[in-house]
Amino acid sequence: MGSAKKIAINTGGGDAPGLNAVIRAATLSALNRGWEVYGIRRAYFGLMGDDEIVPLTRDSVRGITHLGGTILGTTNRGNPFKKPVQQPDGSIKEVDYSDRVIAAFNKCGFDALIAIGGDGSLRIAHDLYEKGLPVVGVPKTIDNDIPGTALTFGFLTAVDIATEAIDRLHSTAQAHERVMIVEVMGRDTGWIALFSGVAGTADVILIPEIPYSIESVCAKVLERERLGRHFTIIVAAEGALPMGGVPVFKDADTKRLGGVCEVLAQQVSAITGKEARAIALRHLQRGGSPTSYDRLIALRFGAAAVQCVERDELGVMVALDPPNVLTIPLAEAIKSQKRVPIHGDVVTTARALGISFGD
Amino acid sequence: MGSAKKIAINTGGGDAPGLNAVIRAATLSALNRGWEVYGIRRAYFGLMGDDEIVPLTRDSVRGITHLGGTILGTTNRGNPFKKPVQQPDGSIKEVDYSDRVIAAFNKCGFDALIAIGGDGSLRIAHDLYEKGLPVVGVPKTIDNDIPGTALTFGFLTAVDIATEAIDRLHSTAQAHERVMIVEVMGRDTGWIALFSGVAGTADVILIPEIPYSIESVCAKVLERERLGRHFTIIVAAEGALPMGGVPVFKDADTKRLGGVCEVLAQQVSAITGKEARAIALRHLQRGGSPTSYDRLIALRFGAAAVQCVERDELGVMVALDPPNVLTIPLAEAIKSQKRVPIHGDVVTTARALGISFGD
Amino acid sequence: MGSAKKIAINTGGGDAPGLNAVIRAATLSALNRGWEVYGIRRAYFGLMGDDEIVPLTRDSVRGITHLGGTILGTTNRGNPFKKPVQQPDGSIKEVDYSDRVIAAFNKCGFDALIAIGGDGSLRIAHDLYEKGLPVVGVPKTIDNDIPGTALTFGFLTAVDIATEAIDRLHSTAQAHERVMIVEVMGRDTGWIALFSGVAGTADVILIPEIPYSIESVCAKVLERERLGRHFTIIVAAEGALPMGGVPVFKDADTKRLGGVCEVLAQQVSAITGKEARAIALRHLQRGGSPTSYDRLIALRFGAAAVQCVERDELGVMVALDPPNVLTIPLAEAIKSQKRVPIHGDVVTTARALGISFGD
Amino acid sequence: MGSAKKIAINTGGGDAPGLNAVIRAATLSALNRGWEVYGIRRAYFGLMGDDEIVPLTRDSVRGITHLGGTILGTTNRGNPFKKPVQQPDGSIKEVDYSDRVIAAFNKCGFDALIAIGGDGSLRIAHDLYEKGLPVVGVPKTIDNDIPGTALTFGFLTAVDIATEAIDRLHSTAQAHERVMIVEVMGRDTGWIALFSGVAGTADVILIPEIPYSIESVCAKVLERERLGRHFTIIVAAEGALPMGGVPVFKDADTKRLGGVCEVLAQQVSAITGKEARAIALRHLQRGGSPTSYDRLIALRFGAAAVQCVERDELGVMVALDPPNVLTIPLAEAIKSQKRVPIHGDVVTTARALGISFGD
Repeated sequence: MGSAKKIAINTGGGDAPGLNAVIRAATLSALNRGWEVYGIRRAYFGLMGDDEIVPLTRDSVRGITHLGGTILGTTNRGNPFKKPVQQPDGSIKEVDYSDRVIAAFNKCGFDALIAIGGDGSLRIAHDLYEKGLPVVGVPKTIDNDIPGTALTFGFLTAVDIATEAIDRLHSTAQAHERVMIVEVMGRDTGWIALFSGVAGTADVILIPEIPYSIESVCAKVLERERLGRHFTIIVAAEGALPMGGVPVFKDADTKRLGGVCEVLAQQVSAITGKEARAIALRHLQRGGSPTSYDRLIALRFGAAAVQCVERDELGVMVALDPPNVLTIPLAEAIKSQKRVPIHGDVVTTARALGISFGD
Repeated sequence: MGSAKKIAINTGGGDAPGLNAVIRAATLSALNRGWEVYGIRRAYFGLMGDDEIVPLTRDSVRGITHLGGTILGTTNRGNPFKKPVQQPDGSIKEVDYSDRVIAAFNKCGFDALIAIGGDGSLRIAHDLYEKGLPVVGVPKTIDNDIPGTALTFGFLTAVDIATEAIDRLHSTAQAHERVMIVEVMGRDTGWIALFSGVAGTADVILIPEIPYSIESVCAKVLERERLGRHFTIIVAAEGALPMGGVPVFKDADTKRLGGVCEVLAQQVSAITGKEARAIALRHLQRGGSPTSYDRLIALRFGAAAVQCVERDELGVMVALDPPNVLTIPLAEAIKSQKRVPIHGDVVTTARALGISFGD
Repeated sequence: MGSAKKIAINTGGGDAPGLNAVIRAATLSALNRGWEVYGIRRAYFGLMGDDEIVPLTRDSVRGITHLGGTILGTTNRGNPFKKPVQQPDGSIKEVDYSDRVIAAFNKCGFDALIAIGGDGSLRIAHDLYEKGLPVVGVPKTIDNDIPGTALTFGFLTAVDIATEAIDRLHSTAQAHERVMIVEVMGRDTGWIALFSGVAGTADVILIPEIPYSIESVCAKVLERERLGRHFTIIVAAEGALPMGGVPVFKDADTKRLGGVCEVLAQQVSAITGKEARAIALRHLQRGGSPTSYDRLIALRFGAAAVQCVERDELGVMVALDPPNVLTIPLAEAIKSQKRVPIHGDVVTTARALGISFGD
Repeated sequence: MGSAKKIAINTGGGDAPGLNAVIRAATLSALNRGWEVYGIRRAYFGLMGDDEIVPLTRDSVRGITHLGGTILGTTNRGNPFKKPVQQPDGSIKEVDYSDRVIAAFNKCGFDALIAIGGDGSLRIAHDLYEKGLPVVGVPKTIDNDIPGTALTFGFLTAVDIATEAIDRLHSTAQAHERVMIVEVMGRDTGWIALFSGVAGTADVILIPEIPYSIESVCAKVLERERLGRHFTIIVAAEGALPMGGVPVFKDADTKRLGGVCEVLAQQVSAITGKEARAIALRHLQRGGSPTSYDRLIALRFGAAAVQCVERDELGVMVALDPPNVLTIPLAEAIKSQKRVPIHGDVVTTARALGISFGD
């Protein structure tokens, strides 16, 4: 089993249902080996602050598996390679703090870092590993766009939430004979839109991987009208891509409501003459309790990350390859984004069901 | 028990979870008395169309208690007193069709109409009753703003949905240290905002009955900041009323996303310097399966309406006066809107919990 | 506002969803008045132990509104008037400890006790009040059987859970053409069975208030069979009363599974020749998060109890009389049990829908 | 695309959430190819009855993706190789009807059968295929015990339901300081118990694959007691196997409530002196709406089965090999049962979390 170790855990990027389950599994797995465990608040910069390194005990991880958010308090996008620092002249300049972060890490006497994060955070973890930081990555994104792992925790919870919303909207869409446009997360990939759209039996699904034409979308609305189906449900990823255009969020203030769903509502209404209503699910998709399967993925990832540390397998990311959890090099995980295969069997199933992708 | 009767059921206005339960209870109550029952599509105008009057049988109401929407297909806001009719010169003029509607009703041989609707539809029902239509009203609104009844079906379902959304947003608000502003339904009354805000432990609740100042709202955000609570949840009714101002929806295209919640997000962010995010729950609140208690209210209303018809008690609305269902004159029901009592015990409880109303 | 007070809160009997919301509202209401608040573990006997009196602060009641269980750790049925005490000869004798409890209470310097409990606990509270203890009662039972209050918190949550279970069983009952018997809580009253049975569209509902004959129950099963409905859902309260008999739980080891539902399954199967399956929901009904409405009732009760203390209105129980919360003397609350009115409109609605009570 | 085909769909064995989604996807996939589709009620024997073969149209599969049960009305365990037939002397003898079933199938002019079923039904499908029936199998079991497919639809829904139940029981177990024993489905395999037990953070999980000793189970209860954790949650599969013994259901009338969970409750209570309560989730696990992921698996299976028919790939079962759906020979699928790998990473994760398997 080797000698006792001292490990640190941090999280980067947006929250995802299951974060606490990873932290709990990693903590208990380590404590049960006789190791010490610490949580780092504020991602990497917490290593340089006195009060941001908190011991993780059995008590601190008790009863948190099903809780949303993170007991580490906040997630953070800070990049130690590009820390914004105010200069003497008042301007802000990005400074490379990576050496300082690694020095602080070593000074704490940590044997390894378990870094839970999305593509941005995993890239940072990889780059720090290249500079000597002993790190194991755990993929974390509700977007499911990290390569090498069949699923990421939080993703199926988001799909469940979106599907439930689409289920609800069916009855009101039908009662009012309207077009309802539901916007779900996914700026670069359409996983949530595709999965929730098929499970919720949407009529049209718009994803970044398959450019759409508004005419094709409206043709579907009108075809349903002719068949006596006076309502239509459209599920659109934030990054839904008009043919020959750019995604709505790219040239808009993305903090605003009314991204692609509102634009689509106006266009569909103008072309078809039907009432159209937009709804953006936004943060509803990432809050709350993880589904049982997401808890399992998260717990398995947390336990697997500690096993990696134990056998000194560093610079890797844990990944789900059902029914197993295995590892891939961090370098592999950050090479590309996992996009929806446009000839894969979920898209094919959707088309067989009569769902339009607006293409 | 009296002689067999022939009754009609229609619905007006937006859909509300529980509509189908009313229809089922009224239908079975009538059929079990040996009566005939018909559903009228398209509210009143369906009486004048051939294919809009459908017999309601045991089979047609089987298994619908828990379904959202309405088996009558559509709800409709058409007003027989003000039907828009195209004139020879191409212009549209509102014409009083009420006599024609009543004549059509009588020609069908109906003994009574059970009219399920909100304030607008109940007013029409009342006015038609004054002109001789034998009608019993059933209150239907998720807004809970009809006087004379403790609750309307659909309201508590909407509160449940909004509360669950607020629950979810807590974890993500805390993880990102943000202000989250949730917009719920309620243009004239704050029932949904008040009930879901208290149940979901919001920090600020903004309702039409209590004008707010943005400074007071921001003071609450900053006070929490000082206490180490780096996030704030604000629940706002659509019709939240700025002191000395008008509700946002009054001077906006209300079909747009981004009503009061988006305006508040911009203001709060500008004043406090905190990140703020808006989410409008919109139609999510009125779709889907009614809660068990809403099903009960709806079923009791449907059964009670048939009892009214049986004892020739017409021109009334069924109402909940826990633990009983009773009736009030339609004339009473439409005299005013039931608004949140600003010194009532729910508001008092909210204040005792430290919740701010921005006043 | 009066002078600052020091109050204690305890809970007795089984847990009910909403307990934590009462504790939170009472605590915050008191703290916001500048009072001191303490929680007493182990009901009354905790007053005599050193480590059972815990200060309640803002931090201790943060984020607990939606949590099931109770932060006071345990509930307890101990009766200070009848404490089992081991005698010198080894035998157990019940001893009246009430004076000692009151003395301990006074020694702590408490101004009032907020006692949250069901009929047993409220009776103890009443008897201690008669002996001088300054007490305000808060009704707590998922059974909804306390008189004077329209609803008790936890009850509608239990109804929701039972209704959801009945909903689920419909599809499997139909697919397998079976009789499914669902046993819900209610030894003396049938509130949960009645409400969930009507909301879940059971075919037969058996409650203590309406004695049933097994022949009548089976007649309903067979009548459905003749109509081509090859499945039947029966909802039975634990205390369902056979005509001329006694409830099953009265002559059984009630810790066992297989109370009335199993007996009914055997009888129905023997008489009708149909496959019958039993399921007892048991503790599923009292665990988990309270519904939004139950949270509201609980929060309002907690806040109202503190108002009672403030105005020295003691010896009372807070109660819901929609839309208000008011008080009734504890003496009234314990005089009888609130049973289902057998000619009330929920039973009448059920019969109008064709539901049999086996009578 | 080949010539138009005429296909039949049947279902065998117990119902599973997702059945309707398979039927819908297969039906729409076939109709969109210009094929004819029929549903066979009563599994195979329906082929020999006039009124048991129903055409499946767009209308008959509309809006059923999220519904539990099966629109084919009933599922059935009848085995055409062993049909019980009454003999002239009144005795019942099993007769091989397989030739008659195949003849009836051919007489109907069907090109292929899509057989949705569990291990028993798939074995029958395989044996009929060996005799010439053109069949494609779709795995259906909430037990997840069919080899060759990573998951079966319905399984994760059952896990979700069980996990939610365990979540609920935590608060009441803690409030009453009890041992709660939850019995879930799984006579031969422990998949549901393992997944829900880990996701719901049980303390002890008992599965058929890992024999347990009651002493070891009680040791865990008492160890928790010593650590101040006065409650314990035990999740037991129906087929939990005592060391050197037989599963409880094997020598009991399994239609009774109170299988392994009740036996365990008595034993644990006797040995530890703690109150213990049993609850069997039974049919709650298989009713109701499938989760979004189960809907997806089911829809993909239905669409994939039609693709098999199109390319004349018969005698196979569709299977999930994430992220793809592929096929395996039926002969492979029925060779063995997929059991929990006792050194797999879910069991390892459970042990790392401190969960006992009673071994």
